Amino acid sequence: MAEFDLIERIRARVATRADVVLGIGDDAALLQVPAGMQLVVAMDTLNAGVHFPEGTAPADIGWKALAVNLSDLAAMGAAPAWCTLSLSLPQPDARWVDAFLDGFLALADAHRVALIGGDTTRGPLSICVTAHGVVEPGRAVRRDGARIGDDVWVSGTLGDAAAGLARWRGDAPDVEAADAASRAAHDTALRMRLDRPTPRVALGGALAGLAHACIDVSDGLLADLAHIARASGAAIEIDVDALPASDPLHATFARERCRVLQATGGDDYELCFTAPPRHAAEIERAAADCAVRLTRIGRVHAGSGVRVRCNDGAPWAAPRAGYVHFA
Amino acid sequence: MAEFDLIERIRARVATRADVVLGIGDDAALLQVPAGMQLVVAMDTLNAGVHFPEGTAPADIGWKALAVNLSDLAAMGAAPAWCTLSLSLPQPDARWVDAFLDGFLALADAHRVALIGGDTTRGPLSICVTAHGVVEPGRAVRRDGARIGDDVWVSGTLGDAAAGLARWRGDAPDVEAADAASRAAHDTALRMRLDRPTPRVALGGALAGLAHACIDVSDGLLADLAHIARASGAAIEIDVDALPASDPLHATFARERCRVLQATGGDDYELCFTAPPRHAAEIERAAADCAVRLTRIGRVHAGSGVRVRCNDGAPWAAPRAGYVHFA
Repeated sequence: MAEFDLIERIRARVATRADVVLGIGDDAALLQVPAGMQLVVAMDTLNAGVHFPEGTAPADIGWKALAVNLSDLAAMGAAPAWCTLSLSLPQPDARWVDAFLDGFLALADAHRVALIGGDTTRGPLSICVTAHGVVEPGRAVRRDGARIGDDVWVSGTLGDAAAGLARWRGDAPDVEAADAASRAAHDTALRMRLDRPTPRVALGGALAGLAHACIDVSDGLLADLAHIARASGAAIEIDVDALPASDPLHATFARERCRVLQATGGDDYELCFTAPPRHAAEIERAAADCAVRLTRIGRVHAGSGVRVRCNDGAPWAAPRAGYVHFA
Repeated sequence: MAEFDLIERIRARVATRADVVLGIGDDAALLQVPAGMQLVVAMDTLNAGVHFPEGTAPADIGWKALAVNLSDLAAMGAAPAWCTLSLSLPQPDARWVDAFLDGFLALADAHRVALIGGDTTRGPLSICVTAHGVVEPGRAVRRDGARIGDDVWVSGTLGDAAAGLARWRGDAPDVEAADAASRAAHDTALRMRLDRPTPRVALGGALAGLAHACIDVSDGLLADLAHIARASGAAIEIDVDALPASDPLHATFARERCRVLQATGGDDYELCFTAPPRHAAEIERAAADCAVRLTRIGRVHAGSGVRVRCNDGAPWAAPRAGYVHFA
């Protein structure tokens, strides 16, 4: 199986769009960007053993490789359109590639994203994706727009992916399960959040025009909030006890461990954003339309940095700020 | 040195352009594609030990990582504009990154390409670049446009990069050098062609509207011509003795070895294109304007496949069709 056979195998399965003038198979792809729209470009790489556990199912790797990029577009309020894929494989394995594409293309098709080119090559397992989307000029939601008095919101639940990783690494649960089946169900639910994150594409699009600043929670909530605070020249205070948690998380780890996972665990790919309180009702309607849970977790203040309090007002100190590559 | 410090180190050095609305530092970049232009997207990865010898200077790796992508845009006749970079490093090494950027940004600045985002992460040394350019609708030069009767042209010289790699691997020269300094000069010249390929950006732009089909010579001339022949539904016949060779190549390897390197060696990143004979004079003027040597090496015929002849008309059989990943 040579490189060109792999490319043909991929090309045979991809969907196209009317704005793709030329897709896979030439030196480069040709695209027609809708008139008057700005182009939005994100690029993220997953390396084996760093961004997913060795032994992760290839379909899950495929899903996640695209999901983390669509999440970046969502955090800008952009509508995704096209992506490119660079696949480095230790050896050409058609079954692996087929399974990888099962996950990758399932997510691509769900969001009408066309895979329009890339590269397949030999090397340690690594997947690099560039995702392209569009947004109306002036409507992109950046990190630097938070204003004093804004509410801080987060979508979905936090800490699940990090809890799934902790369980995979062998960390014992703190909370007793009713039976082995319950434990397995909790573990599966947490692991799904690690392996199959849901990019909040529709919510991100709905927030354009409502939110002042937005980021996706990839490095851990506190680390990502720190990016917004620094870029916006403001302070952010959150209530650690207000952070949304899933039932499987509470059924696995005790209260303080949950707080740490929620505040500093990475890989959740939820959207964290700030918005003026006057938009709260419209934001809640948008979230309901997208069937996404939203929680208000804090507020933007004058100053700098991120402060965390418990619901009794006492300060809460995170043992670490979040996931840091190369740390 | 954490990931964010590396990103800051990169951001501090990159140039920008008026059409970059938002560059490095957010979840995604925002770009203003010029009105009426099509977007052209190429993505290529370099893995250590596969696409460059271990021990290659980081500045050369940086140059080449961008060059191979600009070469893809050039082969489409596109004007380059922006790029993203994903850098996987075994450990965060600021000196390595600085040297890498020396090469990467030297080429980027020479072509006014803005680095607008990407990813830095831990993993085996791997560099993935996505290059973005623009082209007027209908003017992109594809692989599938070759027509019967077209001349086949190639830019620059062929086989140098493969000869440089062969020398690095320890292959003995066939041709005696005048002295050790001459040998060293030849080796350096060949190695430079491997490490610092010149993307034919200006030539590619000039060919839009003149050439019917174009490809960059990355996998080896015969392999790349086969892509044009197959995509265009035509046969291509070339004269192996017409293939352009550099003086250092002739000063290193004997005639038959040179032929093999020229016809099947990869990594030259010259442009190979077909064009109607009536455009020959205009093409030669364009090449002169770009200060690039051009050579007519063959013709497009009815049929399929690539045939190679010597200048006496006898068929010439390549020992292999070109570089094949995973082979």
